[in-house]
Amino acid sequence: MIELYELAGQDPDLRFSPYCWRVRMALAHKGEEAVTIPWRFYEKAKLPGAPHNQRVPVLVDHGEIVSESTAIAFHLEEEYGTGPSLFGGPSGEAHARFILGWTDSVLVPALAPFLVPTILPLLHPKDRAYFKSSREARLNASMTDLADSRDGRLSSIRATLTPLRVTLAHQPFLGGDEPTYADYAVFGCFQWARCVGADNVLDTQDTLNLWHDSMLDLFDGLARSAPVANP
Amino acid sequence: MIELYELAGQDPDLRFSPYCWRVRMALAHKGEEAVTIPWRFYEKAKLPGAPHNQRVPVLVDHGEIVSESTAIAFHLEEEYGTGPSLFGGPSGEAHARFILGWTDSVLVPALAPFLVPTILPLLHPKDRAYFKSSREARLNASMTDLADSRDGRLSSIRATLTPLRVTLAHQPFLGGDEPTYADYAVFGCFQWARCVGADNVLDTQDTLNLWHDSMLDLFDGLARSAPVANP
Repeated sequence: MIELYELAGQDPDLRFSPYCWRVRMALAHKGEEAVTIPWRFYEKAKLPGAPHNQRVPVLVDHGEIVSESTAIAFHLEEEYGTGPSLFGGPSGEAHARFILGWTDSVLVPALAPFLVPTILPLLHPKDRAYFKSSREARLNASMTDLADSRDGRLSSIRATLTPLRVTLAHQPFLGGDEPTYADYAVFGCFQWARCVGADNVLDTQDTLNLWHDSMLDLFDGLARSAPVANP
Repeated sequence: MIELYELAGQDPDLRFSPYCWRVRMALAHKGEEAVTIPWRFYEKAKLPGAPHNQRVPVLVDHGEIVSESTAIAFHLEEEYGTGPSLFGGPSGEAHARFILGWTDSVLVPALAPFLVPTILPLLHPKDRAYFKSSREARLNASMTDLADSRDGRLSSIRATLTPLRVTLAHQPFLGGDEPTYADYAVFGCFQWARCVGADNVLDTQDTLNLWHDSMLDLFDGLARSAPVANP
């Protein structure tokens, strides 16, 4: 049995972590079923591998504990070699590293200040004080200032997406004709926004909607049918 | 015989175009010899394929004219299949597209305003009026303002390089254990800066120096031994 520990909101069915979505999509890509287990920040001691593991996603694969989304992806690629490849071989994997690096160092930091004030009220009440203080420190801004600056951030977020637009003008997925883990890594950020109710990251005219719709459709609409916060 | 038309400065041996450097490195990767032909902007009519082709690089491969660096890379990959692959297969190629897209849409625009005022006096006198007016229009700034703002741009240029640092902390090249066309595309930008004498894009402490030095060493120091503008 495979278990996936995912960050949940006050509503245990609300799962919005971009890193957990990478793993959810990667598991579906491999055709593997997993039991997803809601987890909140206040439950640090309950996380498999605690106290070493402090964050989700954590995968428990038939008893083996694997934490951190990229490590989980490589674990799945190695252990489930008979399913479709997540990287398309060593060269795909090497080049995909840049896409993961860009996502983590550019896209996530662009979206975080925009999404954090939206996320706060969706969290379990016991999580809110921790989330507020840790994110205010990380982003070096008060939650009030972050909320006030949200609308002003949209144009620079959209500008950040230019390399995706350029690439996806050539091919349907970042991985080529079929999606790979690179697509799931980037898409996790869009699903992060979607699940917390921030559905305006992409303008309706954005050429990325074609790719985004394809990602939502994958695996019988896995991401499209995920619970979304009420506005 | 393979001929490569490259942008040259007033000194015909000074070749600094980032897109031409991609092709120079790709040819060396394939183990192919080429005659490189200096070309200046005022010689538009002399470019093979003119007037359709307006820009370098242009490759003339045994009579076949191929223009635009990415098209040239795919041409080389297809026609010189017995040499080492430039992409490592279809998945490498698909994922490399994002690295090319990022380079063209983020790295080149970050460097251009920094380098353009340095390039202007290095050009052939007949090229300068065209270069000045076209670049001032493209960058929406006067050459004087661009020159005055150079130092202030360094920190944001260096911040732009973060996804490279993250990736190259994992592996020696963007292509993995060996360089691929993705490395040449990015490196072309560094060689652009180096050849025009802007050798301070990387701080001496930058972790990217390891990769940059490896790139300069490739093919018996092809890029390291290239003529550089006198300061």
